[in-house]
Amino acid sequence: MTAPRRLAGVDELIDKAVAGQPAAIARLITLVENGAPAVRRIAAALVPRAGRAQVIGLTGPPGVGKSTSTSALVARLRLAGRRVGVLAVDPSSALSGGALLGDRVRMTEHGVDEGVFIRSMASRGHLGGLAAAVPQALRVLDAAGFDVILLETVGVGQAEFEVSSLADTTVLLLAPGLGDGIQAAKAGILEMADVFVINKADRDGAEQAARDLRHLRTLVAESPGQWRRPILKTVATRGEGVDEVLAAIADHHEWLSTTGALAGGRRARAAVEIEAIALGAVRQRFAAVRGSAALGESAARMAEGAVDPFTAADDLVTALGV
Amino acid sequence: MTAPRRLAGVDELIDKAVAGQPAAIARLITLVENGAPAVRRIAAALVPRAGRAQVIGLTGPPGVGKSTSTSALVARLRLAGRRVGVLAVDPSSALSGGALLGDRVRMTEHGVDEGVFIRSMASRGHLGGLAAAVPQALRVLDAAGFDVILLETVGVGQAEFEVSSLADTTVLLLAPGLGDGIQAAKAGILEMADVFVINKADRDGAEQAARDLRHLRTLVAESPGQWRRPILKTVATRGEGVDEVLAAIADHHEWLSTTGALAGGRRARAAVEIEAIALGAVRQRFAAVRGSAALGESAARMAEGAVDPFTAADDLVTALGV
Repeated sequence: MTAPRRLAGVDELIDKAVAGQPAAIARLITLVENGAPAVRRIAAALVPRAGRAQVIGLTGPPGVGKSTSTSALVARLRLAGRRVGVLAVDPSSALSGGALLGDRVRMTEHGVDEGVFIRSMASRGHLGGLAAAVPQALRVLDAAGFDVILLETVGVGQAEFEVSSLADTTVLLLAPGLGDGIQAAKAGILEMADVFVINKADRDGAEQAARDLRHLRTLVAESPGQWRRPILKTVATRGEGVDEVLAAIADHHEWLSTTGALAGGRRARAAVEIEAIALGAVRQRFAAVRGSAALGESAARMAEGAVDPFTAADDLVTALGV
Repeated sequence: MTAPRRLAGVDELIDKAVAGQPAAIARLITLVENGAPAVRRIAAALVPRAGRAQVIGLTGPPGVGKSTSTSALVARLRLAGRRVGVLAVDPSSALSGGALLGDRVRMTEHGVDEGVFIRSMASRGHLGGLAAAVPQALRVLDAAGFDVILLETVGVGQAEFEVSSLADTTVLLLAPGLGDGIQAAKAGILEMADVFVINKADRDGAEQAARDLRHLRTLVAESPGQWRRPILKTVATRGEGVDEVLAAIADHHEWLSTTGALAGGRRARAAVEIEAIALGAVRQRFAAVRGSAALGESAARMAEGAVDPFTAADDLVTALGV
């Protein structure tokens, strides 16, 4: 009796979330974030209703004004009548988790507006858990009818870009005085961004930062017909330059659409998500074996120096019939 | 003709590394770091010769003086006649990679001492690659006869602690003025550390930081007979308090030995390494399928909303016969 009622509850939640009810959206995201048994059912219900939202990634090192920029972008998008979902993800640092949530407070100006939904996701457990949850949380917001989803990540490491790569367009935020950081930036990181923004552009060093970026941009090979990454300046606290950022994002979106890269990117992300879920299923089988006789004995023998990890791994894979 | 000669080269390299030759140690680490085909052979040769070294993890947020502390610990350990390997790992941030390597320069004072070997490993490619390479690099240093291996990681996120969990004893470094960071620290992170050190203890706020830590420590459940995490203060630039840190590490090592936790921890780490290698083998099979007909078609159908990722993942696992 209990199980069918619970499942009916999930269906009701899905209906309410699709109708745009904030409490239902929040509860659905919590379910997918926690890896609830209902995630399959939720995904199956939402996939046919998703695919409309434009996903914009915002990333950059701490201190560049990501929250303020997000807030400014939200304000402009609302003025244009677009419904906006914000997903703020902190994949790497548990210590800064508090700060991230603190930053959210600044965004309460949008808190009473039903056209805006804001959600923070911090890394609980291992990164794989978060990486699996973010695409599902995006799908909830997408199916809930938000026209634009801002995916904000803290930091500029590999993990942040793995999250950010879920966006159609990725904006890399930098600020003057972080020049050493820009110098050290790998060309690979620059390649992953579609739009560069130097925030706090009223401060000393903004022009130098722009010059550094323009130089670095020359190191990134661009073939004819490829997207040319614009370098923009903003003062997000005063809303300066924010319209230009939105225009650049719109340009990039149009470029994606006309070249077929939009659909291609979404197919590639679908493949990554499918593969990750499949890998998770295999990992669960291994986890079931961990502590059991087979793996425990191999581990003890390895600790004694009697077997190497590769031979033991072969045995494990064979034992599982993989 | 070529293959046997190359393998003979690896065997010679292993012999030289085990004999403690720095150039051979460095080349072996490069091989395991790059995932060279010889990794299996290297692991098989080194496992029986490893297991002697004491592995000490040092972690903490940027700016607390990890490099200086590492340098001070190395100096004391050398005075005590112990051979020391240092592995400095930056798992999360590509932007700070340059800074990390820059910090290494400070340690060149040990550069001419054959009893010290220092190596930086930055995250190239995905984190999984680094997580797989670090245990193998530790094994090279272990088999090369270093008595102590300092495993230094930047940051305090989950990824850093996954690396740091490879240590027998983990030291969490903090500094005054990072009080907000300490406040925000999750109990889970504190639980993963065995020794707390407040460096730069000559600065304002050191006592406050110690009080904060003592309070946080009360939140971590400690059963009778469990290790009680000491809270120490250092001024690493002047070497102050470093002997006390080494004494606390020695105490913890003795506690690990007498309770059987040392051997238990090493067995657990062996299990994690075996499992990771096995999972990597499965991931490679998936990667071979990515872009192929089966996964590509599923991804296209999912992007159209015709299939959910869980059903597609089931199909993928079935297709591989897993």
